[in-house]
Amino acid sequence: MNDNLLTYPFTRSGKSAIVPPPPWYYGVTYISAYVKFQKDTLYQFLPNFLDSKGEGWIYIAEFISPSEETWDLMYQDPDLTQYLEGAIGLRVYYEGKSYLYFPFMWVDKDWALVRGWLDGYPKKIAKISMTKLHPLLPKYNKPENGLKLGGYVVRGGNFLFRLQVELREKVDDVPLRSFGAPLNVRIYPARGESETSVFELVSRVRDENVLGEIWKGDAKIELGGYVNDELDKLKIEDVIAGYYYTTYFKVRTTRLLAKLDRETLVSK
Amino acid sequence: MNDNLLTYPFTRSGKSAIVPPPPWYYGVTYISAYVKFQKDTLYQFLPNFLDSKGEGWIYIAEFISPSEETWDLMYQDPDLTQYLEGAIGLRVYYEGKSYLYFPFMWVDKDWALVRGWLDGYPKKIAKISMTKLHPLLPKYNKPENGLKLGGYVVRGGNFLFRLQVELREKVDDVPLRSFGAPLNVRIYPARGESETSVFELVSRVRDENVLGEIWKGDAKIELGGYVNDELDKLKIEDVIAGYYYTTYFKVRTTRLLAKLDRETLVSK
Amino acid sequence: MNDNLLTYPFTRSGKSAIVPPPPWYYGVTYISAYVKFQKDTLYQFLPNFLDSKGEGWIYIAEFISPSEETWDLMYQDPDLTQYLEGAIGLRVYYEGKSYLYFPFMWVDKDWALVRGWLDGYPKKIAKISMTKLHPLLPKYNKPENGLKLGGYVVRGGNFLFRLQVELREKVDDVPLRSFGAPLNVRIYPARGESETSVFELVSRVRDENVLGEIWKGDAKIELGGYVNDELDKLKIEDVIAGYYYTTYFKVRTTRLLAKLDRETLVSK
Amino acid sequence: MNDNLLTYPFTRSGKSAIVPPPPWYYGVTYISAYVKFQKDTLYQFLPNFLDSKGEGWIYIAEFISPSEETWDLMYQDPDLTQYLEGAIGLRVYYEGKSYLYFPFMWVDKDWALVRGWLDGYPKKIAKISMTKLHPLLPKYNKPENGLKLGGYVVRGGNFLFRLQVELREKVDDVPLRSFGAPLNVRIYPARGESETSVFELVSRVRDENVLGEIWKGDAKIELGGYVNDELDKLKIEDVIAGYYYTTYFKVRTTRLLAKLDRETLVSK
Repeated sequence: MNDNLLTYPFTRSGKSAIVPPPPWYYGVTYISAYVKFQKDTLYQFLPNFLDSKGEGWIYIAEFISPSEETWDLMYQDPDLTQYLEGAIGLRVYYEGKSYLYFPFMWVDKDWALVRGWLDGYPKKIAKISMTKLHPLLPKYNKPENGLKLGGYVVRGGNFLFRLQVELREKVDDVPLRSFGAPLNVRIYPARGESETSVFELVSRVRDENVLGEIWKGDAKIELGGYVNDELDKLKIEDVIAGYYYTTYFKVRTTRLLAKLDRETLVSK
Repeated sequence: MNDNLLTYPFTRSGKSAIVPPPPWYYGVTYISAYVKFQKDTLYQFLPNFLDSKGEGWIYIAEFISPSEETWDLMYQDPDLTQYLEGAIGLRVYYEGKSYLYFPFMWVDKDWALVRGWLDGYPKKIAKISMTKLHPLLPKYNKPENGLKLGGYVVRGGNFLFRLQVELREKVDDVPLRSFGAPLNVRIYPARGESETSVFELVSRVRDENVLGEIWKGDAKIELGGYVNDELDKLKIEDVIAGYYYTTYFKVRTTRLLAKLDRETLVSK
Repeated sequence: MNDNLLTYPFTRSGKSAIVPPPPWYYGVTYISAYVKFQKDTLYQFLPNFLDSKGEGWIYIAEFISPSEETWDLMYQDPDLTQYLEGAIGLRVYYEGKSYLYFPFMWVDKDWALVRGWLDGYPKKIAKISMTKLHPLLPKYNKPENGLKLGGYVVRGGNFLFRLQVELREKVDDVPLRSFGAPLNVRIYPARGESETSVFELVSRVRDENVLGEIWKGDAKIELGGYVNDELDKLKIEDVIAGYYYTTYFKVRTTRLLAKLDRETLVSK
Repeated sequence: MNDNLLTYPFTRSGKSAIVPPPPWYYGVTYISAYVKFQKDTLYQFLPNFLDSKGEGWIYIAEFISPSEETWDLMYQDPDLTQYLEGAIGLRVYYEGKSYLYFPFMWVDKDWALVRGWLDGYPKKIAKISMTKLHPLLPKYNKPENGLKLGGYVVRGGNFLFRLQVELREKVDDVPLRSFGAPLNVRIYPARGESETSVFELVSRVRDENVLGEIWKGDAKIELGGYVNDELDKLKIEDVIAGYYYTTYFKVRTTRLLAKLDRETLVSK
């Protein structure tokens, strides 16, 4: 068993663990929108030590994500290497530096939820739907000017968001890259006296990071939300552009930025 | 509303129908195995008017399948254009001619179930898992010699089958094509006196049919089955080869071969 | 194999059939609302030969529903005996007589979908959520004045409806009973030349019908809907009352009222 | 927001948190089996500091589980108050005292997974099926001598276990109670330098604990398992009895037994 990670369930072989040890590989296809949120609606979602001017990034994505020790799952149990993800991201400022912070993130697999939580991503399980192309269809066989792609995230009694992008042109970059490194809070609260609470501000490190083909276009977004997912409190001021692109990255570790306490996190 | 098809739920616009009118488009990616079943185990699954020497075809596949009137669903509700399918096929002989007959077929969407049933495919809903590649991953980025792909179909309290294929070489054709046209039984039984029962032997017609890249290799199969899916009564004698390939086809209609009655179908 | 029903997949034993032969037993728990729809919004959902004054019945329900030959599934594969259902019902008039007609119905199991379709219920698969009580909890242990129950139906990119009922008092009957017998259209369209199309107006017959405890109260409803489920075209004028009750019935057969053709069904 | 628990996603209101603050209420219905495992097969599943003589407890169960602040979810979003659970439990000895330890536990909701993980329960998401009774059905309307109940847990490409119980008689107690308090390991591993790793041996405290009606009978169990759930390494020597019962309990906190380190946990 790898020395770097231990997750439940415990077995001598380590093969039943919900999260295999890193490095983890990520091949991703994104449909996303670059937006400006109404700044005053963000207060509900940001701890005091983070600031934002409203820049945001919303996406749905398909992840193919095996880990070094589990490439065999790609054919033995493909579901343990695939998931869909939807998320609401914000450019935030922490100690004067720009970062990418996710108030909300949803996936459709248990291991992706727990793996994310270890690195501070606030994942829940949701139903996610996303356009797929097929090379032999008479339409929708490849990205091109005028192609419309989209999808949605649904959880509980409502959709959380719906996203549609109409492609216009190939471009060289996505504005997300200027947001900076991810900024997450690892949270594992104590449940009894003398137990440990973890509240750690961390940044996930990408060992490798490759952008594939990038298409830019127009985007449309609807925010929904329900009793346990307060998307209805979040307002979009402007939808700047839509993107469809692929990426590859590799992750081994996170970098600690600060140890927090509960009070810092929730102070009003 | 198209004159050729009407399915529930009825609305004036036709837009709530579970199955949109044809033509239907199919872009498919298959992981499959060419097998020989033990001939004596097939009796359980074949009506008397069909004969088989045991040749079989087992697959899991991803379908992207919009219809002429619903291309917009590709971005509005992608789930209404995508499904996974697993199936057990047999080369059968009917009146001296060779056909492809499916004793079992499973999908993961309601509209794919009903659409199939209209054409005589015996679909149920199951959980299906299947390898997906990503072009930017360091492995599993494209089909190649040595690549292992696989998946499974699970329904109720067991897996129904698990399939693994190790690719060896590009080839020009799949043996399935020699099986012949599909042979299905459209079944819609009467539920009361004077009501109509439909038992029609039909063959689905493909208006267009294109094969993409085809890879051949070795295959491994395990048959499972449970109380409502009698796969445990089916035995494989030989696994001849595995295939990984894409295809495109278009469907408008079925061709009637014979009107049957219930007795012909179930006679022992 | 029972002589009264044959559904796919065909096997000699009949044990793989998606729908077991009747009689079918139904033990049901309903959360429902008695409503008045805006009459002019109903045109979209009613064939010309049906009329309505707007009276409606909306429910979510849990069904425990084994069949005579499959009581063993109750412990072997409980999922084949349980489903959740949501539906929109209307009091309609056909040839001067009052009936209960369902423009929409959703379930969460494949066999319930197909079984329903055989009898003309327009079922699709959806995600359904519904309050459950537990006798040992400090609250929500039994129906009583002030208890709030509810749930929702979600399909594709939106909720279809949400329903909440606050209980007030035990009563002796539900207004649904005055709606009359169910009126359904059995639909199985031809898919090729010379094939049979079934369009039969039928009424499902209940051999036994027992009402358990009935609670009446207030109800709240929100209608949603999305691209393949046009609930957004349906408007509620008044929510008259809410009900929470159990029932038992047994079904063997349907009664044919009329043979229709496609034109009668869709004429504008 | 309650001071005792903080889970993601962070919002000012706390209403989006995946786990609401305790106290948590549990109304449970269990189908379970009292078994003896082959002692030598347990080594794979037990850390060195735990010992076992093979006594085990296997169950599937339905939980209705609101929390103090979220009783309203019972009607607003019932799925956030209901889950099915399957588990493999062992009587273990730690420092000479008897405890109940769970090598494996599966649920079907995200919030139940995370809530469990906070208290050291090794939960994954699985598909769980379980007999339900209905008071108005002609059979299966109440527990009684001869009634068979059952279910299964399925995850990935196989079932994990199937359980069937045939009831014989009402009894006063379940042998599980003699196993002792739960013994769990809270695990939250560091993901980078200077980050905190939590490995805490804890026992969950039940503030209230009520047993409802208890039925005893015979049980049958099949263990399955697949690549990420090593149930195939676990062997049952004897199935002693089956039980069907309800229970209620309330949880606020866990009690710390020991702070561990990674080495103690995985030493061979």
